[in-house]
Amino acid sequence: MVILLDAMGGDNAPDATIKGAVKAISQIEAEVVLIGNEEMINQKVKELYGKNTISEISTRLKIHHTTEIIEMEDVPTQAIKHKKDSSMVVGFNMLKEGKGDVFISAGNSGALLTGATLLVGRIKGVDRPALAGILPAYKSRLVLMDCGANTNCKPINLLQFAQMSSIYLQTTLNVKNPRVGLLNIGTEETKGNELTKEAYQLLKKKSKEVGVNFIGNVEGREAFLGGVDIVVTDGFTGNIFLKAVEGLGKFVKRTLSESLKKNLLSKIAAIPSLPAINRFAKTVDYKEYGGALFLGVKKPVVKAHGSSDEKLFEFTIKQAEQFVRNRAVEKLTEEFSKQKVQNIEEA
Amino acid sequence: MVILLDAMGGDNAPDATIKGAVKAISQIEAEVVLIGNEEMINQKVKELYGKNTISEISTRLKIHHTTEIIEMEDVPTQAIKHKKDSSMVVGFNMLKEGKGDVFISAGNSGALLTGATLLVGRIKGVDRPALAGILPAYKSRLVLMDCGANTNCKPINLLQFAQMSSIYLQTTLNVKNPRVGLLNIGTEETKGNELTKEAYQLLKKKSKEVGVNFIGNVEGREAFLGGVDIVVTDGFTGNIFLKAVEGLGKFVKRTLSESLKKNLLSKIAAIPSLPAINRFAKTVDYKEYGGALFLGVKKPVVKAHGSSDEKLFEFTIKQAEQFVRNRAVEKLTEEFSKQKVQNIEEA
Repeated sequence: MVILLDAMGGDNAPDATIKGAVKAISQIEAEVVLIGNEEMINQKVKELYGKNTISEISTRLKIHHTTEIIEMEDVPTQAIKHKKDSSMVVGFNMLKEGKGDVFISAGNSGALLTGATLLVGRIKGVDRPALAGILPAYKSRLVLMDCGANTNCKPINLLQFAQMSSIYLQTTLNVKNPRVGLLNIGTEETKGNELTKEAYQLLKKKSKEVGVNFIGNVEGREAFLGGVDIVVTDGFTGNIFLKAVEGLGKFVKRTLSESLKKNLLSKIAAIPSLPAINRFAKTVDYKEYGGALFLGVKKPVVKAHGSSDEKLFEFTIKQAEQFVRNRAVEKLTEEFSKQKVQNIEEA
Repeated sequence: MVILLDAMGGDNAPDATIKGAVKAISQIEAEVVLIGNEEMINQKVKELYGKNTISEISTRLKIHHTTEIIEMEDVPTQAIKHKKDSSMVVGFNMLKEGKGDVFISAGNSGALLTGATLLVGRIKGVDRPALAGILPAYKSRLVLMDCGANTNCKPINLLQFAQMSSIYLQTTLNVKNPRVGLLNIGTEETKGNELTKEAYQLLKKKSKEVGVNFIGNVEGREAFLGGVDIVVTDGFTGNIFLKAVEGLGKFVKRTLSESLKKNLLSKIAAIPSLPAINRFAKTVDYKEYGGALFLGVKKPVVKAHGSSDEKLFEFTIKQAEQFVRNRAVEKLTEEFSKQKVQNIEEA
């Protein structure tokens, strides 16, 4: 197996991508190809590890040289079209040509989604690929789809998000018959905006037929308590939800650590309970839950957080190996080829 | 000053409303009128405090007898029209007739919003009254408006939410020139859905003119870190945001308390740091931040959380007194009468 990593993508690249790959390599069996400027990467490797090339650290670490970088400010479609030798475009092409099994990037989100759709291509039957993110939840985890790929959605898209994420959870995380909720502002079926009202009816009518265990509307208030495995929503609402959770998470961490360090007394008092507090911080840290999968394209594409650090890259690389091993994309493709998607669309 | 309290509203009424009023009364100067079934309230008072009537606890605690209750399942408009002797309808009428200065209810949200608009009436110039909720934030707090009153909004509504919440924050919490952000999925002005894109342009163009300090788009990720005082959004998105935060808050509290009690050792170890941990829990608990104000109607209406407990009612009553004292609604009315709202609408 070969994992393709956009070495130049993200706020902390290439330091964090290199360190993440080095940390992950001893824990996986796959090769990792760092796609990016070879000279720059080797220079960093020298600084960080005192080696001449990254392959001296592990023979399963390689570099594929590229000369361009898609910046955060670049206009997605233009960047994908014109920056032919960027780490991202080259990564997609290698993935398409079978030179790798999965592509990970923390770069420009818009470009990543555009590139995945244009260069790798949609699975037949899928109208809109979307981002499936994993969030912490009480004694479990929660898949949120769409996390932000599609600002405007139709009910059929939400039904397909439910299908795709169900297959993903069954294959990758071994969750049997995952419970799917529709993110809404109330539990009654008459609640919500036009999209959620229509999507509710479509999900109610078609879920069984397409193997989705639809449990109705879900409010954010209950989403983290373990009663639901998958939350489907349009990409605008999903992104608002995701960032609200991230924002509160940041605030909680900062406040807890300052409460414990408020004065010398509370600082000393905190020492005995630090293991418990660290256990807690680990549970609620969204960074422990890795990248978001872009489901609905023909090959596995993973969008790592723009602000990913080495720890998060390490985790995302391990997660990507798992994802390839479980053949989630192949299973998605099989399922969608079986279904009469045309009929559903007309429903 | 007279505070009108819907004694029958909310999941924990009338126990929680009675206990909250009793706890609040010694900390405020206003009278509190509990609106609800007199016999039932006095029966509870006997059970809880061993007194015959609530006035024996304080002469500033009164009961106004009503015979009906608007249930959570009731259809809002029908309930407001037909349940004339419900605690909620009577409360609104008393507020309108000047028999009280503010009305608090934790009852059926839809009925509360319908009743406030139909029975109390909108301030001239305000197209859509909306809920302004207060959330915890890093060393500060955050006003979120609309928290859920208007599922569908136009850009003009969001501009007015910005105006109303700015006046509210200036008058009630004494925040000078509060910073207003538009809740969105990116900071660039081209980001978002149709509503946020149009609202951004309107806010950019008209904010100064109407006394709003617009700072641009805000993502949930940054909202809690103290850089923004007010977040404006439509009621669907706002409610999704609010409930995501509440849901994560619940999960965080549960996980922290279980981490600390995992085994006897961590239980004992936690004791010295409990004051710090409690300080932390208090900071991030949305219940510490009281009810949401329904801004844009002619008199002060406060929507308390449906699951409010006595502590939250106590807090909300104190907050309501403050709100009346600062004449926030009068100031809103003055401001809106000054402005050429017609012109803005045509903008």
